[in-house]
Amino acid sequence: MAAPLTVDFVAGETGPWRITSVRAIAGDALAPAPCLQVGDPGAAGVWRLRGVVSNLRYTTKAEAADLAARQEGLGRKSATRAALIPIRKSPEWWALAQDERREIMEAQSRHIAIGRDYLPAIARRLHHARDLGEPFDFLTWFEFAPSDTPAFDAMLARLRATPEWRFVSREVDIRLERGA
Amino acid sequence: MAAPLTVDFVAGETGPWRITSVRAIAGDALAPAPCLQVGDPGAAGVWRLRGVVSNLRYTTKAEAADLAARQEGLGRKSATRAALIPIRKSPEWWALAQDERREIMEAQSRHIAIGRDYLPAIARRLHHARDLGEPFDFLTWFEFAPSDTPAFDAMLARLRATPEWRFVSREVDIRLERGA
Repeated sequence: MAAPLTVDFVAGETGPWRITSVRAIAGDALAPAPCLQVGDPGAAGVWRLRGVVSNLRYTTKAEAADLAARQEGLGRKSATRAALIPIRKSPEWWALAQDERREIMEAQSRHIAIGRDYLPAIARRLHHARDLGEPFDFLTWFEFAPSDTPAFDAMLARLRATPEWRFVSREVDIRLERGA
Repeated sequence: MAAPLTVDFVAGETGPWRITSVRAIAGDALAPAPCLQVGDPGAAGVWRLRGVVSNLRYTTKAEAADLAARQEGLGRKSATRAALIPIRKSPEWWALAQDERREIMEAQSRHIAIGRDYLPAIARRLHHARDLGEPFDFLTWFEFAPSDTPAFDAMLARLRATPEWRFVSREVDIRLERGA
């Protein structure tokens, strides 16, 4: 694993992804914008969010190997739909110890197992943002084919019904598409 | 727990802590300088290291409660000696899953238990730096009384002899003192 990869998500007038909706799930929304660029720290924009692709924080070796065998990467030709879901968790979440957060996230909420159910259709990349002083703690980027949109929505509905989501204080659901 | 606290360590001509030694334990050293300021992002200096006081990454609830009951905070009047120990770990460490890192760190190396043996004499604060794109992954700041210097050295010797330290690719041991 190389040094952590810093990724900027810049919403503005230009970019390969067209923003089709910005919906606040919890807390404040983000401003609407026509397009999104991913990975260009120099771009100006309506808003910019930054995160870091970092080491695993909860996933075990067995889980990681299982996921790696199933998942596919970003950038598939068929994956012309995407979602960016920035999330902030409450101070109560961050005050918990490591074993308490893992217990809520997986033993109670099956977060990793739920995501696994949608592999390889729903590709994802998690970006950590809390330690950067960003307004969100996590930025998750998803890519999938148009026909997998209902499956993606079902996955989100399952996750949002978990005990873990009681600790989500802000969540914005941004949907995007690009030409095939 | 409030938002993560960002802390700058600035080595230069001024500051309340006098640098008495800078010693490379693994990899390159840092440049010598007369003084260190802690927590001033605006200060110029010979070098500056930045880290974030963030959520627990390995410590369990039981361990955290035990440590909290024993430890004392920074800034004690008697604690006129300090050490700043920046550490970088290898890519092999960061490629490990959460359970593998915890296994090496505590089950094999007793990192948390060793630190506990020196409470409350050796006060400490851990700063995470890897996700900030810094040259080190961790900056640990220690404060203790002059008479506890031998105990501090013994603690470091025990930690450096552990399996966890095989993953340390760079370590600098900076010692400091201030007037009583």
